[in-house]
Amino acid sequence: MYRSRLEGKLDENTLEFLSSISDDFQIAKYDILGSQAHTLMLLENKIITKIEAQKILGALEKLKKVKFSAKSEAEDIHELIESLVIKKAGKEAGGKMHTARSRNDQVTLDMRMKIRDDVNNICFCLTEVISTLVQLSEKHQNTIMPLYTHLQQAQVGLFSHFLLAYADALFRDLDRFYVAYGRINESPLGAGPVGGTSIPIDRQLTAKMLGFKGLIENSIDATSSRDFVAEYVGNSSILMTNLSRMAEDFIIWSTSEFSFIELSDKFTSTSSVMPQKKNPDILELIRGKTAQVIGYQMAILSNLKGLPSGYNRDLQQIKVSIGPTTTIVISSLLVINSLLQTMTINEKKLRQAIDEGFSISLDVAEHLVRKGVPFRVSHKIVGHLVQLAANSNKSLTQLSISEVKETIPTNEIDVKELYQIIQTTTPESSLQTRRSQGSSGKSEQQRMISERRRKIQAYATGTRKRTNEVSEAIENLENNLKTLIKNKT
Amino acid sequence: MYRSRLEGKLDENTLEFLSSISDDFQIAKYDILGSQAHTLMLLENKIITKIEAQKILGALEKLKKVKFSAKSEAEDIHELIESLVIKKAGKEAGGKMHTARSRNDQVTLDMRMKIRDDVNNICFCLTEVISTLVQLSEKHQNTIMPLYTHLQQAQVGLFSHFLLAYADALFRDLDRFYVAYGRINESPLGAGPVGGTSIPIDRQLTAKMLGFKGLIENSIDATSSRDFVAEYVGNSSILMTNLSRMAEDFIIWSTSEFSFIELSDKFTSTSSVMPQKKNPDILELIRGKTAQVIGYQMAILSNLKGLPSGYNRDLQQIKVSIGPTTTIVISSLLVINSLLQTMTINEKKLRQAIDEGFSISLDVAEHLVRKGVPFRVSHKIVGHLVQLAANSNKSLTQLSISEVKETIPTNEIDVKELYQIIQTTTPESSLQTRRSQGSSGKSEQQRMISERRRKIQAYATGTRKRTNEVSEAIENLENNLKTLIKNKT
Amino acid sequence: MYRSRLEGKLDENTLEFLSSISDDFQIAKYDILGSQAHTLMLLENKIITKIEAQKILGALEKLKKVKFSAKSEAEDIHELIESLVIKKAGKEAGGKMHTARSRNDQVTLDMRMKIRDDVNNICFCLTEVISTLVQLSEKHQNTIMPLYTHLQQAQVGLFSHFLLAYADALFRDLDRFYVAYGRINESPLGAGPVGGTSIPIDRQLTAKMLGFKGLIENSIDATSSRDFVAEYVGNSSILMTNLSRMAEDFIIWSTSEFSFIELSDKFTSTSSVMPQKKNPDILELIRGKTAQVIGYQMAILSNLKGLPSGYNRDLQQIKVSIGPTTTIVISSLLVINSLLQTMTINEKKLRQAIDEGFSISLDVAEHLVRKGVPFRVSHKIVGHLVQLAANSNKSLTQLSISEVKETIPTNEIDVKELYQIIQTTTPESSLQTRRSQGSSGKSEQQRMISERRRKIQAYATGTRKRTNEVSEAIENLENNLKTLIKNKT
Amino acid sequence: MYRSRLEGKLDENTLEFLSSISDDFQIAKYDILGSQAHTLMLLENKIITKIEAQKILGALEKLKKVKFSAKSEAEDIHELIESLVIKKAGKEAGGKMHTARSRNDQVTLDMRMKIRDDVNNICFCLTEVISTLVQLSEKHQNTIMPLYTHLQQAQVGLFSHFLLAYADALFRDLDRFYVAYGRINESPLGAGPVGGTSIPIDRQLTAKMLGFKGLIENSIDATSSRDFVAEYVGNSSILMTNLSRMAEDFIIWSTSEFSFIELSDKFTSTSSVMPQKKNPDILELIRGKTAQVIGYQMAILSNLKGLPSGYNRDLQQIKVSIGPTTTIVISSLLVINSLLQTMTINEKKLRQAIDEGFSISLDVAEHLVRKGVPFRVSHKIVGHLVQLAANSNKSLTQLSISEVKETIPTNEIDVKELYQIIQTTTPESSLQTRRSQGSSGKSEQQRMISERRRKIQAYATGTRKRTNEVSEAIENLENNLKTLIKNKT
Repeated sequence: MYRSRLEGKLDENTLEFLSSISDDFQIAKYDILGSQAHTLMLLENKIITKIEAQKILGALEKLKKVKFSAKSEAEDIHELIESLVIKKAGKEAGGKMHTARSRNDQVTLDMRMKIRDDVNNICFCLTEVISTLVQLSEKHQNTIMPLYTHLQQAQVGLFSHFLLAYADALFRDLDRFYVAYGRINESPLGAGPVGGTSIPIDRQLTAKMLGFKGLIENSIDATSSRDFVAEYVGNSSILMTNLSRMAEDFIIWSTSEFSFIELSDKFTSTSSVMPQKKNPDILELIRGKTAQVIGYQMAILSNLKGLPSGYNRDLQQIKVSIGPTTTIVISSLLVINSLLQTMTINEKKLRQAIDEGFSISLDVAEHLVRKGVPFRVSHKIVGHLVQLAANSNKSLTQLSISEVKETIPTNEIDVKELYQIIQTTTPESSLQTRRSQGSSGKSEQQRMISERRRKIQAYATGTRKRTNEVSEAIENLENNLKTLIKNKT
Repeated sequence: MYRSRLEGKLDENTLEFLSSISDDFQIAKYDILGSQAHTLMLLENKIITKIEAQKILGALEKLKKVKFSAKSEAEDIHELIESLVIKKAGKEAGGKMHTARSRNDQVTLDMRMKIRDDVNNICFCLTEVISTLVQLSEKHQNTIMPLYTHLQQAQVGLFSHFLLAYADALFRDLDRFYVAYGRINESPLGAGPVGGTSIPIDRQLTAKMLGFKGLIENSIDATSSRDFVAEYVGNSSILMTNLSRMAEDFIIWSTSEFSFIELSDKFTSTSSVMPQKKNPDILELIRGKTAQVIGYQMAILSNLKGLPSGYNRDLQQIKVSIGPTTTIVISSLLVINSLLQTMTINEKKLRQAIDEGFSISLDVAEHLVRKGVPFRVSHKIVGHLVQLAANSNKSLTQLSISEVKETIPTNEIDVKELYQIIQTTTPESSLQTRRSQGSSGKSEQQRMISERRRKIQAYATGTRKRTNEVSEAIENLENNLKTLIKNKT
Repeated sequence: MYRSRLEGKLDENTLEFLSSISDDFQIAKYDILGSQAHTLMLLENKIITKIEAQKILGALEKLKKVKFSAKSEAEDIHELIESLVIKKAGKEAGGKMHTARSRNDQVTLDMRMKIRDDVNNICFCLTEVISTLVQLSEKHQNTIMPLYTHLQQAQVGLFSHFLLAYADALFRDLDRFYVAYGRINESPLGAGPVGGTSIPIDRQLTAKMLGFKGLIENSIDATSSRDFVAEYVGNSSILMTNLSRMAEDFIIWSTSEFSFIELSDKFTSTSSVMPQKKNPDILELIRGKTAQVIGYQMAILSNLKGLPSGYNRDLQQIKVSIGPTTTIVISSLLVINSLLQTMTINEKKLRQAIDEGFSISLDVAEHLVRKGVPFRVSHKIVGHLVQLAANSNKSLTQLSISEVKETIPTNEIDVKELYQIIQTTTPESSLQTRRSQGSSGKSEQQRMISERRRKIQAYATGTRKRTNEVSEAIENLENNLKTLIKNKT
Repeated sequence: MYRSRLEGKLDENTLEFLSSISDDFQIAKYDILGSQAHTLMLLENKIITKIEAQKILGALEKLKKVKFSAKSEAEDIHELIESLVIKKAGKEAGGKMHTARSRNDQVTLDMRMKIRDDVNNICFCLTEVISTLVQLSEKHQNTIMPLYTHLQQAQVGLFSHFLLAYADALFRDLDRFYVAYGRINESPLGAGPVGGTSIPIDRQLTAKMLGFKGLIENSIDATSSRDFVAEYVGNSSILMTNLSRMAEDFIIWSTSEFSFIELSDKFTSTSSVMPQKKNPDILELIRGKTAQVIGYQMAILSNLKGLPSGYNRDLQQIKVSIGPTTTIVISSLLVINSLLQTMTINEKKLRQAIDEGFSISLDVAEHLVRKGVPFRVSHKIVGHLVQLAANSNKSLTQLSISEVKETIPTNEIDVKELYQIIQTTTPESSLQTRRSQGSSGKSEQQRMISERRRKIQAYATGTRKRTNEVSEAIENLENNLKTLIKNKT
């Protein structure tokens, strides 16, 4: 439709290559809303007449119910919608809809409206998952487990502490999305193709009608920049790495060798040939989909690198990454939330793992430190104790006094005292004594849980407020235009 | 259908998260063919009866005409097809199709069959594009143009030489795909879930029926490895960077400031608001789609990193990248081929660019070298000549003898001789004198063109042979099973 | 030194593979400061004696002047420094430095201290570059230039407007770094290996001494998470894409074909063989280094994907990306700042480009719209005008009345009126009439400039405040420990 | 030194930004060799005199012993070496070394020479690692282990089979490097800055002197293309993902929960605070370094995307990725080779894992299939058997006849027969019966081992031959120039 100057005809293959239609359906509803706000503004500023506005708005309103099909000769959703409006409203009125506007400001408007909604949804899902983690923590303040580093048992810990670690990581993800919102929620509408317009439009008005906080002001910047997408997908990729780490923990814990947890049947699959299998497919997919979001971020950054200013058609490919990223992030949060709520913790196995290992070694060493032995010396003594025990297949408490004696280089500590310390250091005593802030210590759990609860509230309230602001603006807009259409002269 | 042991029910969201159905339609036809070969082999080895085979094969044959829909409760295409076969052929017969096989060998079989076809198609398209480049070179052996480094005019050159540079780069891409084929065209069928089977199957037979050159033998490797996909998408991403470089050249040359070429109208778009625009969107999209393929490669490599051996569900996400990569690569090659054939070269502008610049400077310097002046000295002299000319807005030939004199430090060369050299060095003389192998020299062009023609022939013949081998095997298979189905007892 | 339990010896190759020493020198000074704060805290909480503290602190103080060499048997900087302290301070005292601490909290402490400084430096450099852009805008409010989309001339614009577009993009980068600071500036010290400690330490105290705002509290999270690095390098990669876009614009404008700007000699290189060249190497390197930072971000995300919780040695490789990222970002900002200050704008060429093109077409079309012609119709009329003019190699104003008449389909506008409009539409009139907010309109420039100046002030003040807070804390710490060391008993 | 035309001075910061010196030391020796071959060729073609050649070659020969320092004002190694040669050999002679050559062909020559050596080294290391895997397989043909999919026990297998799976994956890596060699081993020397030269050089001669198989002929292509680097680092990243998968297996197997293997002490580290730890750091680093190589590949692809033809300074950043990639790949192969040779396999634990699981289920199901039960039915029966056993905490053999009876839907099989099958199906019987090609079956192991041995031989011989060809050419070159230098007139 824009091709009056160009004499050739697009053949089918080229059209498909050019077309972004199949990626555009995700933004169709935003495109229509944006056009309606734009039309209303044109009317308010007397750039078009009331009758023209009514015709355009009526045509747009009908399009809201249309299911667009990928089979279209239009290059993109903007052209498709405009041509349908012209068809319905006539050339005289419909041909005025695109006044003082360009596809360049339109497409980034649509993307900003979509991502704005996506961010609010993600923030909401994140508060849900964090909430689940904190609730589970509440229940598991006495569930003793080994903490791992290098996938080797390191220290005695509590399951609540483990869960809160992921809650804290997700809080940072939440915060990243939360502040990115401000950079996304700015209206580019009215920036025109690149340099603005001489038609006396009111950009503030359309921004307000569409629920934006303000403008992305400079028209070159507004139409050329996609850093808001890179930030959105970038934040998504960091969030996904956090989810993938949780997935990895749970995949390993689901092995028959660990058996720390059992996933609900609905989150596992069996094999097409091996009936005994109970595969943690959901978790593996979270890991795999993380890789995909990382790939999208790579595509975006590589796309933007070295582009000259002003809109370039390369930017069309940026859209390809938004939809799948949002789908992956939101569905991952949803499934991980249910998975957490339905999985079974095998407390016996967790405890047994500790008893078979040496994860209280550091507690013994620190006990010695508290008795005045320099840390490096106590580290060495306990190192020998563990070696002795491991070689003779005993636990530390099973070592004899004479064995214990061997490990003391030169009277740094009385052998009976050391023997006594070994005998009395248990996982329970360890977690009683552990008191450093943020540690696995018993006393730390409830305090941390309460603080996280407060934090969840704050984010949930903020997210709700934002969501309402947007939906109220849109409702207002729709009411206004319904009144206008109804009062047709 | 495989969920007998698992008691829960997949809710819709989880199913969608798990499902790869929408990515699987690209491999449905391969899945059916693979199942047919497998069934025939089971029959030949007396693992199933003729009647059973007829039922299964008949059911599969009907499925070839079915258009699968994304709305399905099946997790993937393998489950969907098997359940449809069981429905049509009955549990007794249909339930035997999956004997001695697993989804783990099946899915990688399907991917290998698809990528095998994709590679042959790409090789074919590549020979076409190279062919077009060489044909254009033939025509443009006298089209003088400036060669650029750092986007600054560097040396006088020929358009044929420029085109052959891209031909040579694409030959290497072609070669990479051509040899990768051997690592792709190996059958994993019969590897089972991970460790093979005790059913007396014949893997060589199914391989042969499906047109494979041999087996990907070790069953753990066959089901766990996806390096053939990483290699395929990796080669695609390198190819795309080459196309994107060509696109960048042509985008810049299409600016009104350069005006070296004019693209055919069918490969440009105009603006939705600025009627004077003739935008090289196709080329920008090639650049943007390059970024996307790079992103897919990132997703694949990051997916594979750190996976334990044996099939893991993460691998399902690998499939997501194959289809779009193939579509992008093939359509980019198609459009660039037409674009090359239809674009107009503005020979006058190319020549004018040279006359306004200093790209014959190196020729002057080399002339001095041939007269015995050390290169570093001649480099300095010509540097001064250019500076003088640039400052006074003259061309080199417009410098006066006294100006030329200034630039000779201490009699390294007679001023008249230098003046004479400057006057006689023209773009044409430059290209006559240039004789080093592979250079822009006039004499080099025809030789290079002839050699490239021969090379195209060799690759085209090889690609055709391979394509035929595959299609003959498949035809044979289809004939055999049609005979078998027809002769129903 | 930690290898008492392990009997083998590291051979050289393995040691090198394991060692991060060469990446660690960037964090050595932070490691020493962290150890000093930790030691002071141990003293204040009576975990070590004053004499022990004096010995340790004295040893550490001396190490501040040491230049570490990559030739070391130590695996990392933490081990190296501790072993040197033990050597200097004796096993009895020195062996207590590592009490209630682990390399796992230490290394992330060091990284956070380094990145905290890096972020402050980047924020400072960003305010400088933005400041330069705004100052240049002030000067160029009357410099008329063509604005581009698809690298094709689109609209008439002003150079100030162009510069402000990049200023606004960089403001968002600035803001991203500015808020990330809060997530970085939290102390992990005292988290221990993974689960905290039973030694009665005071984490808040060390945090305060080192100038942190608070704690990264949960000890598992504190030692396992690297999202602060992913966010830092992620923000850097987005910033670099913005710089690379500016670089691309300037590279193209530096060609002899465009000649819109001339870079200062100190920011170009000549060729080793072609004396006429003036290559914009700096700008090309900014583009190339952008790719490198993108690569680092991919390395980090891929590293984190699928890691189990707790410290894993994979995380060591995260460090590799920090140093070069910071160097690239800061030096890119520094060079681009000087480059902007020293480049010459060729106003004549910019103006000439407009006169030779059709970038006032939209202004003509909008003039028609203001006369009541529907936009789509006026778009078509002007499209025909441009085609007519282009085909006969005229400018729009050179078209005759009868030619103009041809383009009006059916009396939508009076031909004389249209002719008049064409004659009176000039670049200057265009920029007078352009009034939409954020446009290239004359009236918009000064307003935007003033607002940006205020914004720069706000960020600069905030950055200065933060920098001071950190440096005051460190100074305080150093004074305290100097007093302590001096007052040796 | 090339800056005669440019009036400004590079300040230090800019110089550092521009300089690639620190990345260039890896190619210094190749640069000198390339210059020597070039000089000899200039002599043979009478472009310089014997005396001049002697002076240049003598100066270059001395530089071979110099250790270059990063503190240099030179922008790169080419400028540095040329300026040193001019200093030593005088301007008259030294100033002729750069005749008919440019830094643009020089730098890619150096990179090709380096990567050529790197590829040969990697091929050699790969044959070593594969050899170790095959030797270990030889020893472990009777070591029964569970094979995993989804990290869940799937089938009974053999350790030899597991090792051979990685051998086969590495063979494909080997093959990728092996064929890439041909595309790397082509000489660009003499391509000049972009368009060749009018000096009568002989490119074939320098190619032969430097041991190249032929030319990268087209001079634009030779100087602009870096796909050989992208292919090299691309192959490296795929290889690393394979090594990282092995690392992941071994990390999990090293946990106390699995305990399938014990790494030699020299390949583990202990903790700085937890003396009981034996961390598989080497393996974690392989995983982490894989991410780094992936990042390098992304940097390269993103760098190349959208570059115009001809040398652009962006390409300098490509060099940054080569050195670290090679170091990582070769050292990873070296350490994994030793690690394999020194690790202990805990056969008891591997067997115990099978006895506690249900990995023979598929064998039971297949036994039923061999008795005529359709696979889907037998899959269901065995599914119920496993469920029953798991719920009552028994092994399959511990199920009573009446329990077994429950699982047969409607007489598909006689209960006694099924009971008998269960009782007689053991891991050993399973591996006897498994006979499909490439399976874990006992009979398959020796055959596969023998074939792999032959394949190793073929690659090793080929690699040796290539290495010799290169080193003989270089030796010849060095002898020739020593003779020439000695016979100074």
